[in-house]
Amino acid sequence: MTSTTGTDLLSVDASRLLDHLRQLAEIGGDPAGGITRPGFSRAASLANDFVAGMARSRGLDARIDAGGNLLIARDGAAPARPTLLLGSHLDTVVNGGWLDGAYGVLAALESLLTLTEQETDLHTEVVVVAFANEEGALFPQPFWGSMVLAGMSDDLPAAPTDYNGNPLSAALRRAGGDLTNLPSAAWPPAILAGYLELHIEQGPVLADEGADVGLVDAIVGRTVLSVELLGVAAHAGTTPMRSRHDPLVAAADLTTFVHQLPDGGRNCQVATVGRLEVEPNSANTVPGQVRLTVDLRDVDPVRLNAASEAVRAHLHTLDRRYGTSHRCTLAVCSRPAVMAPHLRRAIAAAASDLGLRVRDMNSGAGHDAQIMATVTPSAMIFIPSIGGVSHVPDENSHDRDLVAGAQVLLHTVHRLVAR
Amino acid sequence: MTSTTGTDLLSVDASRLLDHLRQLAEIGGDPAGGITRPGFSRAASLANDFVAGMARSRGLDARIDAGGNLLIARDGAAPARPTLLLGSHLDTVVNGGWLDGAYGVLAALESLLTLTEQETDLHTEVVVVAFANEEGALFPQPFWGSMVLAGMSDDLPAAPTDYNGNPLSAALRRAGGDLTNLPSAAWPPAILAGYLELHIEQGPVLADEGADVGLVDAIVGRTVLSVELLGVAAHAGTTPMRSRHDPLVAAADLTTFVHQLPDGGRNCQVATVGRLEVEPNSANTVPGQVRLTVDLRDVDPVRLNAASEAVRAHLHTLDRRYGTSHRCTLAVCSRPAVMAPHLRRAIAAAASDLGLRVRDMNSGAGHDAQIMATVTPSAMIFIPSIGGVSHVPDENSHDRDLVAGAQVLLHTVHRLVAR
Repeated sequence: MTSTTGTDLLSVDASRLLDHLRQLAEIGGDPAGGITRPGFSRAASLANDFVAGMARSRGLDARIDAGGNLLIARDGAAPARPTLLLGSHLDTVVNGGWLDGAYGVLAALESLLTLTEQETDLHTEVVVVAFANEEGALFPQPFWGSMVLAGMSDDLPAAPTDYNGNPLSAALRRAGGDLTNLPSAAWPPAILAGYLELHIEQGPVLADEGADVGLVDAIVGRTVLSVELLGVAAHAGTTPMRSRHDPLVAAADLTTFVHQLPDGGRNCQVATVGRLEVEPNSANTVPGQVRLTVDLRDVDPVRLNAASEAVRAHLHTLDRRYGTSHRCTLAVCSRPAVMAPHLRRAIAAAASDLGLRVRDMNSGAGHDAQIMATVTPSAMIFIPSIGGVSHVPDENSHDRDLVAGAQVLLHTVHRLVAR
Repeated sequence: MTSTTGTDLLSVDASRLLDHLRQLAEIGGDPAGGITRPGFSRAASLANDFVAGMARSRGLDARIDAGGNLLIARDGAAPARPTLLLGSHLDTVVNGGWLDGAYGVLAALESLLTLTEQETDLHTEVVVVAFANEEGALFPQPFWGSMVLAGMSDDLPAAPTDYNGNPLSAALRRAGGDLTNLPSAAWPPAILAGYLELHIEQGPVLADEGADVGLVDAIVGRTVLSVELLGVAAHAGTTPMRSRHDPLVAAADLTTFVHQLPDGGRNCQVATVGRLEVEPNSANTVPGQVRLTVDLRDVDPVRLNAASEAVRAHLHTLDRRYGTSHRCTLAVCSRPAVMAPHLRRAIAAAASDLGLRVRDMNSGAGHDAQIMATVTPSAMIFIPSIGGVSHVPDENSHDRDLVAGAQVLLHTVHRLVAR
């Protein structure tokens, strides 16, 4: 990490960053080692309070908007000034990891603290955001906060509830927001100068290849098909093979087809059958019905659509092949999001200055950046995940990578906003 | 149904038989049209009471043995005389059909009533048996009653319970049995002259081929393998296809392998994956674990064993092919049961006398006859099932087939036991 530029002395406080991360991991931490801090839970509010308190103790402003997003800015920052947003989210899945989201928020805060402490002269305001309910673990409206901030609250349900039927309105009020006033939380795109999100990779690519930093080209689009395969339940002993209409055999064929569909990336990036349920699910009975999901992801909407059409066509082949029938509905359809070239160039230059090995890559996971990219130039920085795992208690990254990522973010921001 | 033999006038009372069947179907009948009469339930005891009452009202003896089996004999029949047993069971699965078991018991009673009413001179006693808990729907010890009667009570659990943990001892006592005295219900094989069971086919073969009667060669043996496929759960978006260890893809391969294994009957008669469960079963997650059952059936124990070994060998292929691992345990292993040739000849001759079209076939389902075959010559007669379905409310057979089957049973018994 040597540099010969004018930003030689620009550095995050590594031990402060790591301390903040470890303290935050206590909130919603469970005995098994995982973190359970779903959006709009008590634990999520405590996480907001912790980060806001940390910011205020260092002289920064912190507030919650109507959507429940935490916003941190320099004291007295002019509200109408062009603003570069930095952030991620503080909520987690159930029994998740300590870095997914939290790392991006605390590294963003660390960048803003460093710039403030160094009294850097900024031509563009820098604001840290912790988006509310990115995961949707309790209230099934993922990307809630970024959609509100991006002015997409009309696309959200009018009276959202959690998985138990409890209204979001009350939980949002307890979290400092206001469901009746969501438009007040939308930022005019003209004020936004861009959005940067630092995140763990959540996959094995960087670790496998020994790269330090992932420079995200695009966040994949995602199509999830919900498929029902319908056959005829029958006695497993008395029903001859030729008389069967077995939807699980059709589902096996489909699962194999889906697994082979990417074909080394020629057709789509990844394809997964993750959920599969059998009725009546008895050893002694030829199944009568199978429900499953087909999850397809790619950065190219044309290829994503073609992959989806290939699955739909294969479903008709299965009907003929196994004497079954099917229903197929589109459960999820998110478009790919391309990251802004000028922001990517700034990240690449910053990493290069720091002597870090950069790898271009796509994000196979969804992030608030894909929402923000619809209203402002956006980019993402990845750091290696140990073992490639995420959303589990074992989720982890090396301290050196956590610090290096924060350095890249800080230096990128400095390149973009310092006079 | 013309005949030129001396049994011209020998006929069951068709309307009495059909009336008994319809009255019995009221016991445990539910509003949806199915029958729920699990072994040792109140409904099963009421069914015993109904059949016993019917027998007593016609001058027959009826008693419950220590295992809960209902036994019906001619008044004053000598207990040590060689005895041909006729029967089946009165218990059902949950929401099952009206004929599975009940038909065999009531047709056996009808045969005994007819022989008694006609004062037929018998050289071998005829006893009707309604075996307790053949299905094992509530107490998971199927073939309970036939195992007790066949002297296999040592192979049963010492303190059996139902699926909710309630002891069988109390339920058996309420049903008129005695768990502490099971050996008293075992019949010395020397007294047994054979066992005949009339049953609906529960499959489509007779109906598809327009045959009137199925003459069972053998009851298939059954091997159920309980398989766990172990992989690595991972994010469905961020985990490249080449980095996956997806046990559901391995399970799909196995399901296809199992479906193709019979190969027109060359390797085994039928093979089924009926139960399959995925963990964590989320659209967004590459599965980490799959549990499934492989059910293999054949009348040849050598082929059955070879089919089982082929599945076990393929599991090792899957480990290499998908980077997964597996555990495989033997969950069920019942040996094939060959039906007695002299009983089969008697059935064939009786059907021929009645002008009925007979088809030789195997039984793919398990029956009390497979237990009885271990201690006495046994045989089964099948009649067509409409649509080939069973264990469902729609289970049904045409009245003409129900009557024809009972006629075949009566004429077979007459050939075997009349002087």
